[in-house]
Amino acid sequence: MKKEEHPENQWRRRLHEIIFEADTTEGKTFDVALIILILASIFVVMLESVRPLDLRFHKTFSVLEWIFTVLFSIEYILRILSVKRPIHYIWSFYGVIDLLSVLPTYLSLFLPGSQFLLVTRSLRLLRIFRVFKLTRFVSEANILKSSLAASRRKITVFLFAVFLITIIMGTVMYLVEGGQNGFTSIPRSIYWCIVTLTTVGYGDISPTTVLGQFIASFIMILGYGIIAVPTGLITVEMTRQSKLHTNTQSCPNCGYEGHRDNAEFCYHCGHSLHS
Amino acid sequence: MKKEEHPENQWRRRLHEIIFEADTTEGKTFDVALIILILASIFVVMLESVRPLDLRFHKTFSVLEWIFTVLFSIEYILRILSVKRPIHYIWSFYGVIDLLSVLPTYLSLFLPGSQFLLVTRSLRLLRIFRVFKLTRFVSEANILKSSLAASRRKITVFLFAVFLITIIMGTVMYLVEGGQNGFTSIPRSIYWCIVTLTTVGYGDISPTTVLGQFIASFIMILGYGIIAVPTGLITVEMTRQSKLHTNTQSCPNCGYEGHRDNAEFCYHCGHSLHS
Amino acid sequence: MKKEEHPENQWRRRLHEIIFEADTTEGKTFDVALIILILASIFVVMLESVRPLDLRFHKTFSVLEWIFTVLFSIEYILRILSVKRPIHYIWSFYGVIDLLSVLPTYLSLFLPGSQFLLVTRSLRLLRIFRVFKLTRFVSEANILKSSLAASRRKITVFLFAVFLITIIMGTVMYLVEGGQNGFTSIPRSIYWCIVTLTTVGYGDISPTTVLGQFIASFIMILGYGIIAVPTGLITVEMTRQSKLHTNTQSCPNCGYEGHRDNAEFCYHCGHSLHS
Amino acid sequence: MKKEEHPENQWRRRLHEIIFEADTTEGKTFDVALIILILASIFVVMLESVRPLDLRFHKTFSVLEWIFTVLFSIEYILRILSVKRPIHYIWSFYGVIDLLSVLPTYLSLFLPGSQFLLVTRSLRLLRIFRVFKLTRFVSEANILKSSLAASRRKITVFLFAVFLITIIMGTVMYLVEGGQNGFTSIPRSIYWCIVTLTTVGYGDISPTTVLGQFIASFIMILGYGIIAVPTGLITVEMTRQSKLHTNTQSCPNCGYEGHRDNAEFCYHCGHSLHS
Repeated sequence: MKKEEHPENQWRRRLHEIIFEADTTEGKTFDVALIILILASIFVVMLESVRPLDLRFHKTFSVLEWIFTVLFSIEYILRILSVKRPIHYIWSFYGVIDLLSVLPTYLSLFLPGSQFLLVTRSLRLLRIFRVFKLTRFVSEANILKSSLAASRRKITVFLFAVFLITIIMGTVMYLVEGGQNGFTSIPRSIYWCIVTLTTVGYGDISPTTVLGQFIASFIMILGYGIIAVPTGLITVEMTRQSKLHTNTQSCPNCGYEGHRDNAEFCYHCGHSLHS
Repeated sequence: MKKEEHPENQWRRRLHEIIFEADTTEGKTFDVALIILILASIFVVMLESVRPLDLRFHKTFSVLEWIFTVLFSIEYILRILSVKRPIHYIWSFYGVIDLLSVLPTYLSLFLPGSQFLLVTRSLRLLRIFRVFKLTRFVSEANILKSSLAASRRKITVFLFAVFLITIIMGTVMYLVEGGQNGFTSIPRSIYWCIVTLTTVGYGDISPTTVLGQFIASFIMILGYGIIAVPTGLITVEMTRQSKLHTNTQSCPNCGYEGHRDNAEFCYHCGHSLHS
Repeated sequence: MKKEEHPENQWRRRLHEIIFEADTTEGKTFDVALIILILASIFVVMLESVRPLDLRFHKTFSVLEWIFTVLFSIEYILRILSVKRPIHYIWSFYGVIDLLSVLPTYLSLFLPGSQFLLVTRSLRLLRIFRVFKLTRFVSEANILKSSLAASRRKITVFLFAVFLITIIMGTVMYLVEGGQNGFTSIPRSIYWCIVTLTTVGYGDISPTTVLGQFIASFIMILGYGIIAVPTGLITVEMTRQSKLHTNTQSCPNCGYEGHRDNAEFCYHCGHSLHS
Repeated sequence: MKKEEHPENQWRRRLHEIIFEADTTEGKTFDVALIILILASIFVVMLESVRPLDLRFHKTFSVLEWIFTVLFSIEYILRILSVKRPIHYIWSFYGVIDLLSVLPTYLSLFLPGSQFLLVTRSLRLLRIFRVFKLTRFVSEANILKSSLAASRRKITVFLFAVFLITIIMGTVMYLVEGGQNGFTSIPRSIYWCIVTLTTVGYGDISPTTVLGQFIASFIMILGYGIIAVPTGLITVEMTRQSKLHTNTQSCPNCGYEGHRDNAEFCYHCGHSLHS
């Protein structure tokens, strides 16, 4: 009979439900525990980078780091065991992230003191997205994502224009300030130009000649004005997206969604929506 | 007879009208006097914190502080007397604030020099909200509040994304700048990253390596771009809210809606809207 | 006969046409000349404030200043002569501005070296608005003005909220940083809080304690987020204004304007708009 | 016969197709090669401006610069040859840019060390626009351009208001700070005012008097608020533009408009839109 499964399969399906899904109580508990573990491990990575704390609690941090690594390793093995095609999982985006989040600690045994392993450890943070995939924030995130995706091209054009402006104005400022007052090279002048145009304004480099300050004023007002462009793009797109998403009726004939608010016939198959 | 009240009740109702409401002349006068008192007492707290002024006018400030405290204490007692269920008021949000705004001065007799009492005193400012609750700005504040409440979830998703970006980019900058130039630990790098992404840009920490400045440029342009996201969210929500709040009258003849606010005749059939 | 005017009146009307209006060629020439004079005089005021230039060209600046003053004085007298009720003009907003823009130079004869007269001279700039009142930018300026006026109350509520946030967070930062690192008094902390919340970020004062930087991060993200509020308010209002202003039809019966785009009957008198 | 062309014409048309158009494989290859060459030459200009790199690789940079110049010169000659009316091309915008991007290197033989030639070389960047003219980003760029063009007048009014505010507040700050703390002249104070109003905030000049900080706070909040104005203007205009650019099809049966982009049937009467 079909319904009787191989016990191993049954066990695997159960494991899959707990680890990969969040519909059961065990699944939810697992997810919450995982989020706490991830955040705690990131928190330890941060504290470890603070010199005075590291000098004092180096031992504790090491022990905690190994506890996290062992737990994440067990989770990684369980994930491999719970899926039917492990190869598929191992090479997936999250599979690679899962591996990268335990590997550095093991590697540090052979390559002591390697700072670069630190950043790999902080990749654990990305694993949080998997857990959030299962929550009720998904639809909100999707509207944001689809708005950004839909205005992708316009934003590219805008960023390209910003890119050209900063190169040209950066070169001009390099000439005007005469390689002094921090404008020691064109790349540095471009860096200053980005700092100014985005209204960040560190002040580590700032013009001191009259002409330089005049051009800087122009760049600032330009930056102040063109910030309106991405805002306008996203707002228009979000307005459209929010209109598309409000109406939830689907055609009783072909199942298509996304009808206009006052639509009476399906735009795809022409079937009446009210029958 | 029902209409004849116990004299004490009558007196309490009268007091309640003056203190808690703003419909009568006395009630309004009381509210205005209270706002002036609160602002004056906050002003004294501020001046007291300026060392030179405190050295010179310490006596005056102390006297003023005690006058305010005594007046607020009397008000607190009157509020308790004027309500039927004092316990209910005492444990309400404003009841606690009212108590916290007089307590520090009395406590300072026993715990001299405690700086922390200062901040409690500035909680008096929150009492202003009670008075404003009664003004005509309520509907405006409500539109703002409901817009923010409705886009609450999208803003949470956005802030979570910002949070992840700052942690990841902060860690990267810590590695790139090699623990120097102010990037002495990951939390400090994250602090710098927030300063940059929000386009504040103090300049107390700023990258000096070429790669660091390159990544910083990327973060700035990112921050410049994603400021559009909350703006878009709030704008879309406010558009919807403002549509909900416009007039809801429909023509008694043809049923059309969407009339101008001061319309007297239907724009579609010409029928009077007020018949 | 009515049409024959007193010669003096005729001459006054002619003068009024040139000075106060811009319909004739002479009127336009006068306006352009006035704008150039105003800008030139402001430019001289600016250059005069630059120490090295003033030391070298003090004589030239003085002569130019007197030429401008004499010309503006003649204009002022002509304006008085050209109107029927001079008193009405003299006490009007622009009348006072006109007087204030010549007075300082005469006063400087008696009160030499008074710096304060400088700022009064720069009030001449306000006179430019009178000239612009007559140009084709009026309708654009009106849409901006009416949008701002319509969202006046919401902006007041918003600014009041910002005001409260800065006072509370300023006090908290004063306590957290312990009166050091530039946070030497509550007013100064509030100043820092405004600098941070508005994403200006001078960096003259910046937190150095861990808790201070944590709270500062919070204020920055708050400021980054609530900038969306005024933007949303203005955008919604401008959308409404631009809709009201696009349609130019007026009722053939009562003359009311501002009809809906697809209106067929006047919203005020019920008359058909298409007859 | 008409179809048989003079061999020289045929060869010219072929050249024109490759150089000026992007429909053929050769045309596309040429465009991609040109973009790479332009970016590489700009990159060399940038590196050359970095003192340490220039000292070490001066020879290499010179050689590369001459290679780029020769290649661009050949391209320029080919462009002249491939068009029927060379004079027309030579004096066109892109013709001048093309010449200006090779001239500086030749001139540097006679005018060694002239820094100003550098900026002319970076004009090569503008040539990228010609290539992009042929891509699919054109329609996106057009929407941005027409939105900006349509709100041109309103933005002018806004910028004029900003200009007046900075002049007046700059003069006031000059007086308040008494020509000290960096506010050494009115133009410098205006520069500071622009830095503050646009929320850039370098911190190279910042007020230190109490009154100065108070006025600065006011300017900051003003700048924070009026950033909403250009944003609102652009958003409203983009909303209108995006509506203009959506599909214009109307139902052949009932005439209703506003169909979804991929609609096949009318949402109102159910009639096919493609019959």
